[in-house]
Amino acid sequence: MDNLVKVAVDAMGGDYAPAEPVKGAVDALAASENIYVFLVGKKDLLEQELSKYTYPKERLAVVHAPEVIETAEPPVNAIRTKKDSSIVTGLSMVRKGEADAFVSSGSTGAVLVGGQVLVGRVKGVERSPLAPVIPTVKGVSLLIDCGANVDARPSHLVQFARMGSIYMEYVMGVKNPRVAIVNIGAEEEKGNALVKGTFPLLKECKDINFIGSIEARDIPYGYADVIVCEAFVGNVILKLYEGVGGALISLVKQGMMTSARSKIGGLLVKPALKETMKSFDVTEYGGAPLLGLKGLVVKTHGSSRAIEIRNSILQCIQFKSQDISGKIREKLEQAKVQEEKEGEEETV
Amino acid sequence: MDNLVKVAVDAMGGDYAPAEPVKGAVDALAASENIYVFLVGKKDLLEQELSKYTYPKERLAVVHAPEVIETAEPPVNAIRTKKDSSIVTGLSMVRKGEADAFVSSGSTGAVLVGGQVLVGRVKGVERSPLAPVIPTVKGVSLLIDCGANVDARPSHLVQFARMGSIYMEYVMGVKNPRVAIVNIGAEEEKGNALVKGTFPLLKECKDINFIGSIEARDIPYGYADVIVCEAFVGNVILKLYEGVGGALISLVKQGMMTSARSKIGGLLVKPALKETMKSFDVTEYGGAPLLGLKGLVVKTHGSSRAIEIRNSILQCIQFKSQDISGKIREKLEQAKVQEEKEGEEETV
Repeated sequence: MDNLVKVAVDAMGGDYAPAEPVKGAVDALAASENIYVFLVGKKDLLEQELSKYTYPKERLAVVHAPEVIETAEPPVNAIRTKKDSSIVTGLSMVRKGEADAFVSSGSTGAVLVGGQVLVGRVKGVERSPLAPVIPTVKGVSLLIDCGANVDARPSHLVQFARMGSIYMEYVMGVKNPRVAIVNIGAEEEKGNALVKGTFPLLKECKDINFIGSIEARDIPYGYADVIVCEAFVGNVILKLYEGVGGALISLVKQGMMTSARSKIGGLLVKPALKETMKSFDVTEYGGAPLLGLKGLVVKTHGSSRAIEIRNSILQCIQFKSQDISGKIREKLEQAKVQEEKEGEEETV
Repeated sequence: MDNLVKVAVDAMGGDYAPAEPVKGAVDALAASENIYVFLVGKKDLLEQELSKYTYPKERLAVVHAPEVIETAEPPVNAIRTKKDSSIVTGLSMVRKGEADAFVSSGSTGAVLVGGQVLVGRVKGVERSPLAPVIPTVKGVSLLIDCGANVDARPSHLVQFARMGSIYMEYVMGVKNPRVAIVNIGAEEEKGNALVKGTFPLLKECKDINFIGSIEARDIPYGYADVIVCEAFVGNVILKLYEGVGGALISLVKQGMMTSARSKIGGLLVKPALKETMKSFDVTEYGGAPLLGLKGLVVKTHGSSRAIEIRNSILQCIQFKSQDISGKIREKLEQAKVQEEKEGEEETV
């Protein structure tokens, strides 16, 4: 078991729990022999679900967690009081090293707070960002941060840029990823106080490929691989992506029903259109990692189906084999040493 | 001429000047007998363009402005030094009361700065927001603020809510417009410092129909009529709308070229699809007013064609006949009186 990547799966989280998380786990086990799954949740429920499937029993264990944290619960309080919830149990397993990763479609707030409090941040990490990949016409980009900690400082954003670069390079396989900061114009002097404070710091970073500002208009065209912003803006971008995409699709469908001619055309283009839409669907790309923690925590959409949970579990293999947490620690340490050296030189 | 709405049009601004602004002005004159147009720009160029058209000469005058402010110029400096530019000339006409409104597709920065400095704000207005209408599946919403003044305070956002309500009610004809603040969750305790500071103030406003937070995902579905946010976020929303829309359309078109079947279907749905896309195109809805100024200033897209300029000119009729600037002044005065009264009551 030691050479397997051990993933704790929150079987009680999300709109379709426990059915979809259980199916996702079973599918992941079928897809890779390198995975061991802990299904965390109400034992009797999970065993009942599992009885529907054939799966390698030596690579799956049920971990009983009788409590469930609801989406509407205030996160800090939920983490503190529901010690036997699937979220607290799964995160604690990561902290103790019993699991390498925790995957959950449950309360975003509870997962974010719990990740920081229970798993803990890598030494040197000031804030742990939630970094989903978003579709572009060229492939995908990493949007960092979309978490719950708003009102960031420039030093946070610089760390996001470094962590995001590591993720895109070693998990997504993008060589020398282009890093850009979300801004309201391309010029260096534009932006709010946070962006103006961050821009010169990013320009000084020799260990990332900083290409400057990116306007929101250019994000869907894939002009950058790592899109740095503070969480409020990231959240707006992520959700508007979803909203505009969904609204347009519904309008396109309506538009096709307006005449006999377009109805026939609609039937003919339907399969091709469905494929296209899938490639631009944010929910198709597995979960968002919470970067900079001592173990891996992946947040999947509340509306996740088995396919997303399966993909998120499989994503953990690359994350562990590439030792992303270790690489983040090293990079931040090196950056600190470099800054101190430059500081000394300036003093001398 | 006194009963006509006098609109100064920047004939040198935008990617297609002077051809498209001139055509837009001529089209507006044909569409309404209540309009008088001042075409502001290089006289010889404009007269040459005008010679292509037949138009009511008694309702159009060319105002010579030999200088042009380029998009890349730092706005404050441009406004200060280029006194004979079309932007400074047009805005000065509004200040002096020679024109009721100024419509420009030129440098956004110069129009925003010039609007505040040259036309001046209505008494009581702390900041003048740029408020474009954006398409939704139900119609349109007003996105306020998308301007250049970032890092707003709660009191600014409260004024935006009031000004936006007036615009939607009296210019767009939406009775009792629903006002929402852009947030990262529906709960009152969510948000960054600015939103948390603004939310309770909006709740207390008896003169607007505040419905709470709106997540970016719900904006394209038309859940609110007036979408309040600070300018950095507004800018991101506006440009991402454009970006996601454009990227999706190009993907849909590509998708239709993948097989013989979908190619035929594509031809059949093309007219219906084009109509649909038009209804969701941000550039179709005329210009964005800069609200809270002593006259009307309308900023149209840099890529505006005649149709957008024509629509923006016609929009000025409603703005003037409804005395929007006067209504804004009154509403803000009433709000101030109300606040002072409540302050006194609390002291007593």
